[in-house]
Amino acid sequence: MDLKKYFHMNSGAGKNSYASNSKIQGLIICKSQSVRREAAVEAYLGTGWPATMSVADLGCSSGPTALLEVEDIMEAIERECVELRRQPPEFNLLLNDLYGNDFNAVFRSLPEFYSRRPGKGLCFVTGVPGTFYGRLFAAKSLHLVCSSSSLHWLSQMPEELQQKEGSPAACVNKGKVFISAGSPPCVAEAYRKQFHRDFTTFLRCRAEEIVRGGLMVLAFMSRKNREAAMMEDLYIWELLADALNAMASENLVAQERIDSFNAPFYAPSLEELEEEIEGEGSFCIRSSDHFGAGWDDDDLYSATGGAAADGVIRPVRYAVRMEKGVRAVAEWMLRSHFGEGLAMDDLFCRYGELLAKHYADHEAAMTNVVIALVRN
Amino acid sequence: MDLKKYFHMNSGAGKNSYASNSKIQGLIICKSQSVRREAAVEAYLGTGWPATMSVADLGCSSGPTALLEVEDIMEAIERECVELRRQPPEFNLLLNDLYGNDFNAVFRSLPEFYSRRPGKGLCFVTGVPGTFYGRLFAAKSLHLVCSSSSLHWLSQMPEELQQKEGSPAACVNKGKVFISAGSPPCVAEAYRKQFHRDFTTFLRCRAEEIVRGGLMVLAFMSRKNREAAMMEDLYIWELLADALNAMASENLVAQERIDSFNAPFYAPSLEELEEEIEGEGSFCIRSSDHFGAGWDDDDLYSATGGAAADGVIRPVRYAVRMEKGVRAVAEWMLRSHFGEGLAMDDLFCRYGELLAKHYADHEAAMTNVVIALVRN
Repeated sequence: MDLKKYFHMNSGAGKNSYASNSKIQGLIICKSQSVRREAAVEAYLGTGWPATMSVADLGCSSGPTALLEVEDIMEAIERECVELRRQPPEFNLLLNDLYGNDFNAVFRSLPEFYSRRPGKGLCFVTGVPGTFYGRLFAAKSLHLVCSSSSLHWLSQMPEELQQKEGSPAACVNKGKVFISAGSPPCVAEAYRKQFHRDFTTFLRCRAEEIVRGGLMVLAFMSRKNREAAMMEDLYIWELLADALNAMASENLVAQERIDSFNAPFYAPSLEELEEEIEGEGSFCIRSSDHFGAGWDDDDLYSATGGAAADGVIRPVRYAVRMEKGVRAVAEWMLRSHFGEGLAMDDLFCRYGELLAKHYADHEAAMTNVVIALVRN
Repeated sequence: MDLKKYFHMNSGAGKNSYASNSKIQGLIICKSQSVRREAAVEAYLGTGWPATMSVADLGCSSGPTALLEVEDIMEAIERECVELRRQPPEFNLLLNDLYGNDFNAVFRSLPEFYSRRPGKGLCFVTGVPGTFYGRLFAAKSLHLVCSSSSLHWLSQMPEELQQKEGSPAACVNKGKVFISAGSPPCVAEAYRKQFHRDFTTFLRCRAEEIVRGGLMVLAFMSRKNREAAMMEDLYIWELLADALNAMASENLVAQERIDSFNAPFYAPSLEELEEEIEGEGSFCIRSSDHFGAGWDDDDLYSATGGAAADGVIRPVRYAVRMEKGVRAVAEWMLRSHFGEGLAMDDLFCRYGELLAKHYADHEAAMTNVVIALVRN
């Protein structure tokens, strides 16, 4: 599974596509909007009112969220320019995602996107395929970087947990697909190390690319608890493991494949993030904050005209929404590890049922962080 | 038919795709290689050895030709840097085509592309969707622009020939799909005017984007004859009109649709090009040259292991190749004008037969021009 090259959300516009199931990511962009807008203006002023402002969105994906952040950033700066009575800059809008992303779909939406800006200045949208755990842009070429719902994805399954012959660490996480309360401590440690390697690489690459005074605004899944094994949203993975294990007990999937799978995901605590950023040294933290966003959020229900307060159907609708949301994001990764033999409809049907049961007893808002960094 | 937005070659990798039928475009890139290489080195030196060199390919399409030009340009400059004992620049490689182009296919080929450069400097490939008859890049951001087999496409059917109520010019080109020896003079004049508008816009936009001392290398279809109605390669369109008219006589296509179709194509003479460039005034001509490239070129046959000198099968193989080549390029445009009802297999089968007959009596190398321009 070469995640760095090909990991992608479900493409197209069908019922299992990311485009049709990315409302939660839209909500996360919405909830981090004020931080992003402030950072945009600060980057514009802090880099000396560039005539062309280069803004990158890392992990843009496709569908309705692909252009949300860059559009909002332009608006914030153009509004500031009206206040300052300055000519607004031209914008280079650089949309990044991995090679397998459905850029064609994003590009086909551009005529409509451009038509939403009558009388505004020029902006140029380009697609930049490749991993953000590597260099993507020319040196000192960016003024502002944003990224939403992307940096909780690692570049690979934790290296220390990957099956190598004679490796004692292989398969220590039997029956689990992520850090779990029952995992041996080396599992959380392996995840922490992989996150450290990846996030340091990320910061080093961006430090090369962002000009002095430029900013980054990163929103992604996080945890409030210091202990990774006590992460608030472990249930996302626990229930997926439960669904897979149930299928294994019916011989519908090989138990060894479950044992050797460890989701390339990590939700760091704010303390961990701060340590990494200070350790790498190229960026200063301007602000950081936790916020919740959940598939049961009233905003999501009202957007589709549903009865938000309906106690009977709410758990079911929530579960359907989350099941589809997780599927749109994780299907490619699961398919790539478990092979075409894994019956996805069956797996996600079981997952949805477990989610609905779980919802009855728990809050379901996921913990996210939004952090703004300035290039020293 | 909104050409500016959606015109595209046949996508995918199937038997009618551009990717499988773009050998002639590859040959044209090959035959203009030395001019492009010289221009690349001149642009690098003439813009003061930039640390990051930005190179745009306008009309990159997809398939095996999409990265040929930019790869060759990098090689030429890196070779020059070895001679000069200089550190080679990093490269921004900006691949442009219209919104409907299959950028996904191009992007999926990038891991292999990057792996062909072990030990070389960094280069960053990005996709820039949009029409080159408009601004695509930030002001003064490019050092070198190349374009191959693209600028003979107009932004639209000649405005003066488009059917408007009460317009006397509408349908003056009955039974034809391009300038023909039998067309009234206003047809060639309408084409000339559309080319003038489009090419001037093209030059003005590039003049904004290219830094002083930067270059453009443009290779596309041209004609040696001063008279447009005497263009050497008129048969490409004449035979397509013949095939369509034959289908109309069998009620397989409506004659009015043929009468109102005028291919958005123009092959200027060198004199016309020089006039346009001098008239616009932002660029100086460094060099210009005509060259032939044909579907019967020995290089194309030998590449597929065929017997180049086999007199019996050659016309047939030539016709099949050209029929598929024209179809890969023109199918979308024809479908868009004639609707889904037009039987493409039937049309191109007839076209292939006409091509094979025509080949027996004529040379089949198409006239191209390659022209190098410097930004004043």
